[in-house]
Amino acid sequence: MSNFDVIAFDADDTLWHNERLYTEAQAGFKRLLAQYQNPEWIAERLYQTEVHNLEHFGYGIKAFALSMIETAVELTEGRISGWDVQAIINLAREMLAADVELLEHVAETLDLLAKTYALMLITKGDLRDQEMKIARSGLASCFQTVEIVGDKSQESYAALLKRRGIEPQRFLMVGNSLRSDILPVLAVGAWAVYIPYDSTWAHEVAEPPPPDQPGYYTLEHLGLLPALLDQIEHP
Amino acid sequence: MSNFDVIAFDADDTLWHNERLYTEAQAGFKRLLAQYQNPEWIAERLYQTEVHNLEHFGYGIKAFALSMIETAVELTEGRISGWDVQAIINLAREMLAADVELLEHVAETLDLLAKTYALMLITKGDLRDQEMKIARSGLASCFQTVEIVGDKSQESYAALLKRRGIEPQRFLMVGNSLRSDILPVLAVGAWAVYIPYDSTWAHEVAEPPPPDQPGYYTLEHLGLLPALLDQIEHP
Repeated sequence: MSNFDVIAFDADDTLWHNERLYTEAQAGFKRLLAQYQNPEWIAERLYQTEVHNLEHFGYGIKAFALSMIETAVELTEGRISGWDVQAIINLAREMLAADVELLEHVAETLDLLAKTYALMLITKGDLRDQEMKIARSGLASCFQTVEIVGDKSQESYAALLKRRGIEPQRFLMVGNSLRSDILPVLAVGAWAVYIPYDSTWAHEVAEPPPPDQPGYYTLEHLGLLPALLDQIEHP
Repeated sequence: MSNFDVIAFDADDTLWHNERLYTEAQAGFKRLLAQYQNPEWIAERLYQTEVHNLEHFGYGIKAFALSMIETAVELTEGRISGWDVQAIINLAREMLAADVELLEHVAETLDLLAKTYALMLITKGDLRDQEMKIARSGLASCFQTVEIVGDKSQESYAALLKRRGIEPQRFLMVGNSLRSDILPVLAVGAWAVYIPYDSTWAHEVAEPPPPDQPGYYTLEHLGLLPALLDQIEHP
């Protein structure tokens, strides 16, 4: 009998590339404002605006677009032209329409694990945007359940597990964000596998747990997960 | 034994006021652009932009904000000032921070029905915004389940009922939108109670079903629902 009832996965930057859409849009944003400010200061102010806006705007591309526009107004002292504002919205529209590009090893690893385990997708962000990405990813059939949540905190994981009738010690979460996928999952007494992505939004950065923390593992890529599960199941 | 396993409710403009937030924001938007265009043309162009943007931006306040900004750029031929763009974003921020105002009869009717029935909330729109409104409404404890969906179509209702193991003929949906709450629900073979709100977003307007369509009822306000359920259960 397996140790796990459910293996859950984060989506953005765990299964498919996401952060680089933001990085590319931010590059376009810096070019638009190049005549007003230097790129480092633009990035700094944009980040501050995003974090300030999280409470009301939440996560996702539309929130990011509104934060870019606010930052542009502020950094140009209101002088930004209407057409440049439209150009910022177009950056967001391109992000929303972008193809879903899977990370390496993802498709075959999920296909393999879906044969043995009940797989769950847990992603936060904009509901419609995430639904469209799941549909476009071609991965939907691997997952028995999909949870799109407003927040990934210790409380929200505890509530989700309770609602689904899953015992924490029989739940394993895989993700690229220490702050959202790893630390709160370990805190509820579940297992967590951290697979770092090559870049992380500053707001998601957190101190890693001690490497010997029970239930905590790090992998270089998702293709190594079946072997790790095998080790845990048959020590 | 009851005829129903689940009584489901739409949220915006069925349980609490919502459309008037949009109406008020739109009034502010028209004032901002008053020097450029007449109010009717502003409303018309805004509506066209919203519908055009639905595919990528979806529903909700952030999508509405982006559509207001695009409309403003277009109607001013790019001459809108950065500060006026900021003023539009502030309209959206006020909407997101607005108190949840319940419609009349809602609190006591849900309290009463929750004693007899399993109640479900089914709302579409922005995930985080809807979660915050549910929390602020004080109604969360009345509902056994909350479904925030990206879309309310015949397919999405059918999928939801299947996922939850509910037979359509034992499901009744209450809402203010013929297009989203009534017609697709009747189409899957479930029951639907239409409670018109005093204003409806043009995109949600649809032809009502014939008044004698089986399973279809209209009420003036939610306070009349317990008596209607009583009639259906004990004909």
